[in-house]
Amino acid sequence: MSGLISLTTDFGTIDPFVGIMKAVILGISPKTRIVDLSHEIEAQNILQAARVLSASAQWFPKGSVHLAVVDPGVGSNRRALAVKSDGHFFVAPDNGILSTVLNEKSKIYALDKPKYFMKNVSGTFHGRDVFAPVSAWIAKGTPLPMMGTQIYDPILLDIPKIKTDKGQLTGEVIAIDRFGNLATNILQNDIVKNFPPSSELIVRIGGKKIAGPFSCYNEARPNTGACLINSTSVLEIFCNRGNAEKKLKLKVGTTVTLTEKH
Amino acid sequence: MSGLISLTTDFGTIDPFVGIMKAVILGISPKTRIVDLSHEIEAQNILQAARVLSASAQWFPKGSVHLAVVDPGVGSNRRALAVKSDGHFFVAPDNGILSTVLNEKSKIYALDKPKYFMKNVSGTFHGRDVFAPVSAWIAKGTPLPMMGTQIYDPILLDIPKIKTDKGQLTGEVIAIDRFGNLATNILQNDIVKNFPPSSELIVRIGGKKIAGPFSCYNEARPNTGACLINSTSVLEIFCNRGNAEKKLKLKVGTTVTLTEKH
Amino acid sequence: MSGLISLTTDFGTIDPFVGIMKAVILGISPKTRIVDLSHEIEAQNILQAARVLSASAQWFPKGSVHLAVVDPGVGSNRRALAVKSDGHFFVAPDNGILSTVLNEKSKIYALDKPKYFMKNVSGTFHGRDVFAPVSAWIAKGTPLPMMGTQIYDPILLDIPKIKTDKGQLTGEVIAIDRFGNLATNILQNDIVKNFPPSSELIVRIGGKKIAGPFSCYNEARPNTGACLINSTSVLEIFCNRGNAEKKLKLKVGTTVTLTEKH
Repeated sequence: MSGLISLTTDFGTIDPFVGIMKAVILGISPKTRIVDLSHEIEAQNILQAARVLSASAQWFPKGSVHLAVVDPGVGSNRRALAVKSDGHFFVAPDNGILSTVLNEKSKIYALDKPKYFMKNVSGTFHGRDVFAPVSAWIAKGTPLPMMGTQIYDPILLDIPKIKTDKGQLTGEVIAIDRFGNLATNILQNDIVKNFPPSSELIVRIGGKKIAGPFSCYNEARPNTGACLINSTSVLEIFCNRGNAEKKLKLKVGTTVTLTEKH
Repeated sequence: MSGLISLTTDFGTIDPFVGIMKAVILGISPKTRIVDLSHEIEAQNILQAARVLSASAQWFPKGSVHLAVVDPGVGSNRRALAVKSDGHFFVAPDNGILSTVLNEKSKIYALDKPKYFMKNVSGTFHGRDVFAPVSAWIAKGTPLPMMGTQIYDPILLDIPKIKTDKGQLTGEVIAIDRFGNLATNILQNDIVKNFPPSSELIVRIGGKKIAGPFSCYNEARPNTGACLINSTSVLEIFCNRGNAEKKLKLKVGTTVTLTEKH
Repeated sequence: MSGLISLTTDFGTIDPFVGIMKAVILGISPKTRIVDLSHEIEAQNILQAARVLSASAQWFPKGSVHLAVVDPGVGSNRRALAVKSDGHFFVAPDNGILSTVLNEKSKIYALDKPKYFMKNVSGTFHGRDVFAPVSAWIAKGTPLPMMGTQIYDPILLDIPKIKTDKGQLTGEVIAIDRFGNLATNILQNDIVKNFPPSSELIVRIGGKKIAGPFSCYNEARPNTGACLINSTSVLEIFCNRGNAEKKLKLKVGTTVTLTEKH
């Protein structure tokens, strides 16, 4: 155990929901340190939360617990999961939110032992009544097999996949941050696998050529469309000292292609 | 003492006011753990802060300190209070913000011992100069009677009360959250007291019948007005997978009635 | 060391950038306590961050570390700094963000020892790869001279200065908070130095006379322009129970003058 629990929710910070979850966690495990990843996931945007988890978990010490609650199905019969994957623990509803952190070696448990929940589980706030106490018990060292039953069929999101055809790699914009930078579904690894190391690349977005990939924002000419491999190893579209989303009129779903210059 | 202090303010998170209060608390009581409930209380909305306290305090371990600063009268001669109520401590200006957590057994003290304040108390930021240091001293175990003089006339908000007449229970919408769900002033307890256990209820809002009460959001037909007893035991109006505020064009003050189906 | 690290960034709270920095800090220095000052600095507004630091650092125990990242030049050859000033440590890019906390006695080091950085320093996120780990190492007691080379030419912002001429002190509005209160570049100290202790002052903003300086907001007539020395010893323009920015139609840069009444 690292003693750390991270939180990712769509609860916002106006209402006290997140603070109440922290009260429950610290009531069970007083020495746990809690780190907020985001509570401003767009309401019910499971993919956005999944991307936050995959960008963030690796920076925590092994043995950290990552609690994620974007839960449109709260109170229905959707399962609640606790997972061990790559040395990290994840606690979340079974709705695809863990799609980005699961792999063939992950151990996945459906939580079914009410002794690790709050006494009266409401129909509307499992973040407080199920996920917070379970996370605290894991942070205290409770083994997952004591808390649930192993399953092999977690729900997975249908995340858009890249395509490769005749030397062209095709992906798309999948998220936009507050600076107007656009993340694609193309990873550094995809580029390494599909093009020779020294190849010069041509990147097009919505059919239009943009500059790069650069190694930092400042290398690009101000206020023109450009790209780089960002700090989470993702191909990102940006405008140096500007807002790429507005400047280039791009949105989630816009096609991005890479080809080799000859 | 639980070692926990919760914070509720209308200071927002753009300016460093909350961080400065935390610096003061940790300077006095370095081992205290601080939990934010909300810093986005609407400017000077004392009722909203009072509702955050009553929904949240019970989830903290007994002996926690709850600091609440929504303080339009800062620098005037309004009193500053420290309270023990139901095993929890509360520190706040005397302006009604504690209305929801006070009862006939609460011990209420007007803070009048400057040795527990910062050296130079400003006229504009008692959160930093009075409430933060007092909360830290309480978290360290200082008894309330050493910090102030007991009083019996705290200011109380005029919170709208439910009415019951000829088998009809009448309340109103008193708050709206970011998902567009509407909280009423009708508690689970009010329903239990006024209707037989097995009775089927008809709920009307603004005169219009809505479905429910359900036991979770997912039981209701999508995008229609519905209600349930929410996770804080309050009758709440919602739209499954939609925004009830916009869908039903409701606002704070709209009348809600419950009658028994015959 | 106080065991505290404060954070000031323009990263916002939607994306997990701040949480990732905290993960890095706690991975290196697990006992450190982290206090957020603001993550909603306007994108790339270095002056706003500098003002947050000067208003906040003094309220932390000596030996605290203040990490500030507003970093339009990330990935370029701008220097990264660690500073000791007035008993506090500061870690930030060399772009003027520390202008308000540097003085002739400050010790300033350009960070050039990669062993205190993350293994692979990205071109886009030095908050995570450089500033967070360096802050954690300082919080653990690593001496600054081991981490960098002393420099004497940090970049300084051109902060608007007050002028004094024929008994008139002239400054300007330099920031506006969420309540519509306006901070000026005129400090309590400037007034003390330029006017006799008992003098009655006339304050004009945009040429128009306003009431005050008062000692607290409540002394002023509601909804009229007024001023006071605020909790950070700055001359502030406000409207009691109103929004001065909107009421008086003021903005950053508006001239403020003080003269003595005769």
